[in-house]
Amino acid sequence: MRIEIICTGDEVLTGKIVNTNFSDISQKLEDVGLSVGWETTVGDDRESLLRAFQLAGERADAVIVNGGLGPTVDDLSQEVAAQAAGVDLVLNEEWRARMEEFFRRRSRVMPPNNRKQALLPANAELIDNPIGTACGFALDIGKARFFFTPGVPRELRRMLEEQIIPRLLARSGLQTAIHLKRFHSYGLGESHVDALLTGVAELVADGTVKLGFRAHYPQLETKLTVRGSDMEDIRRKLGPVEREVRKRLGNFILAEDDQTLEGVVLGELASRQASLSIVETFTSGQIAARLAHLPGAEKVFRRGLVARDLAEVWSAVGLDGASSTGELTRETAEAVARAARRQTGATHALAVLIDLDDGPDRIEFGGTICLAVATEPEIASRRSRIVGGREWVRLGAVEMGLDCLRRQLQNLPVYERIDFEKV
Amino acid sequence: MRIEIICTGDEVLTGKIVNTNFSDISQKLEDVGLSVGWETTVGDDRESLLRAFQLAGERADAVIVNGGLGPTVDDLSQEVAAQAAGVDLVLNEEWRARMEEFFRRRSRVMPPNNRKQALLPANAELIDNPIGTACGFALDIGKARFFFTPGVPRELRRMLEEQIIPRLLARSGLQTAIHLKRFHSYGLGESHVDALLTGVAELVADGTVKLGFRAHYPQLETKLTVRGSDMEDIRRKLGPVEREVRKRLGNFILAEDDQTLEGVVLGELASRQASLSIVETFTSGQIAARLAHLPGAEKVFRRGLVARDLAEVWSAVGLDGASSTGELTRETAEAVARAARRQTGATHALAVLIDLDDGPDRIEFGGTICLAVATEPEIASRRSRIVGGREWVRLGAVEMGLDCLRRQLQNLPVYERIDFEKV
Repeated sequence: MRIEIICTGDEVLTGKIVNTNFSDISQKLEDVGLSVGWETTVGDDRESLLRAFQLAGERADAVIVNGGLGPTVDDLSQEVAAQAAGVDLVLNEEWRARMEEFFRRRSRVMPPNNRKQALLPANAELIDNPIGTACGFALDIGKARFFFTPGVPRELRRMLEEQIIPRLLARSGLQTAIHLKRFHSYGLGESHVDALLTGVAELVADGTVKLGFRAHYPQLETKLTVRGSDMEDIRRKLGPVEREVRKRLGNFILAEDDQTLEGVVLGELASRQASLSIVETFTSGQIAARLAHLPGAEKVFRRGLVARDLAEVWSAVGLDGASSTGELTRETAEAVARAARRQTGATHALAVLIDLDDGPDRIEFGGTICLAVATEPEIASRRSRIVGGREWVRLGAVEMGLDCLRRQLQNLPVYERIDFEKV
Repeated sequence: MRIEIICTGDEVLTGKIVNTNFSDISQKLEDVGLSVGWETTVGDDRESLLRAFQLAGERADAVIVNGGLGPTVDDLSQEVAAQAAGVDLVLNEEWRARMEEFFRRRSRVMPPNNRKQALLPANAELIDNPIGTACGFALDIGKARFFFTPGVPRELRRMLEEQIIPRLLARSGLQTAIHLKRFHSYGLGESHVDALLTGVAELVADGTVKLGFRAHYPQLETKLTVRGSDMEDIRRKLGPVEREVRKRLGNFILAEDDQTLEGVVLGELASRQASLSIVETFTSGQIAARLAHLPGAEKVFRRGLVARDLAEVWSAVGLDGASSTGELTRETAEAVARAARRQTGATHALAVLIDLDDGPDRIEFGGTICLAVATEPEIASRRSRIVGGREWVRLGAVEMGLDCLRRQLQNLPVYERIDFEKV
């Protein structure tokens, strides 16, 4: 089945907003085994919209149109859709009533210009928007079924998942039971993981398991899309593949599905009623900022300390003497983590200290990271070097700090060689 | 002049990467008074590419194609361009030599597959890429001039600014001297600023000054595009408009052009050889993280403290007693800022303390912010309430903290009513 997307709106076309709606739609379709073949962006312009609808109607089997369903004069999607389909616009009484109810529940009277949002092409199938006033609809233009969706991301997302993807799957003749399993890892590059996972999708012989990746440094997402007759069938197929992925990626898997690294760390700490203090230098508060604002963190996060100068760190955690004048070592990080733990009374302390290269930012710019995780009575530490520019070093150090803390909490080795470090 | 953009590549079409290249190109063209009328994204697919080139060649006067110039087999832009133009691909000796030199300077031998990058359509005009191996080129397809650009963002950006925009301006017949003046503000919404600036563009009667906005909460960018016969003409036109914008937006302008809020704050502190300590709660290190990693911050940033619990903050800055048990007030923030300054010996201390609403995240979720800036002997403080969800409160509080520090450093009132706060 050939699918196209049409994104509309001057704000998108002029680049005023980045078109994340398109990548969201496309990814969601990929995740269920559907592929987008062509995307078009046009502005709030009658002629361009009509031409875009006609061209897509000639090429595609299904078209998702995003945006242009609002109440203002520059929202043209319903009108141009009717024109392209050769039908009239008619007031949809069902949706008008729904909108009035929507405003009533918010103790407001519906403004007159919202009425426009209930004007739909005569032959359109209404597609529900349970959280907004822009109703979706579907109709045929040329040889394609067109699905019109709102520009507000959360309304789009919900309509896509609940209403449009099931319709597309039904049309595509694909098995409609689909499941996406995701693994998040840190420390291994995409090609490395790809090589490690050679043959795992083939453990299911009928080709219904698909392996894919999404890299967003420093993390990598490994995706398994599984198709089956029902969820039971999917679970049966996924089981052995899932186990094999976990075995091969091992300790590098930091979270699965909707979990995040910081969420896993927070969960581990909360489950043992532990508390955490963090000391950081060049990462400048980024490590604390990943964790300490989360719901529930108020019970776990004890204290964060940021300083750019090692002597300042040294004295801030209550250490005396001049041990901070020498070269940064694992021992320095260990002493700082121990002292931070002692000073704040936290059960766990993470220290991530960085010795940055001199000179201007450049691709060869690097940093040496010494980090330590202190508990009672244990201490774990590692030394690492990351090269690739100031921001690359900073992002890498944040992730390494959090991941080492996860490893410590999960009784895994805090040090394992990663692809991003120089030896 | 009708301009279209064609973005190519499976990674963009499948949504694996968000298409920021498109918004970058479109914004850059808008900034010089050119407009994009249509955008198409296709994958690394011969047939789609050819059809996209042909369609754009029928509609447009100029087309920018992005991506597909790499050395691998799925990079098809040169080949399909030649096909669409009805010419052969020929080896461009000039570019082959440039590439060999490029690898030699990096002490590497050019891999054989890079040779492909020097194969250009016979009639193509070479467009220089001073920082990569993907050379740009221009040629006619249909009635349009096509400009082929690399997918690597920094290579694209440079080629666009230095090579392609001047060619487009020459073709458009527009006056080619163009200047973009930008003002960054915090605290006023787009429609408010739009209203405040009514008529400023009209101070220049000939319509060559254009006013525009780009909102990215919590900041707003106000843009003036000025067109003239030369830079002298532009300066003459811009002068009075610029002065009027500064007068009307006043203290809300926190930076201009390439400056950032954190850069301005750091610059103000560095210029007086001052030092800074920061204390924060729910913002969780985000305020420090905006500033303390910047080049030069190692001389200015003294210490950052993060804690979610007010009693923990209280004792961490060396205060005794139970004053932290009561309600959060401006006086609490003042005491904390003073104590942090005293404790760390910094010349300046910023404390941003937040009392969050209870319950799950929702659009009505808010936080009360008490912040203080301490110097010797002054103390400035404000209390504010932001509503709009956890992340909205967090982002708003970070910006408010940094902006109040800027105001203090620039001898402006730390408190002025902003659009984002509830009274």
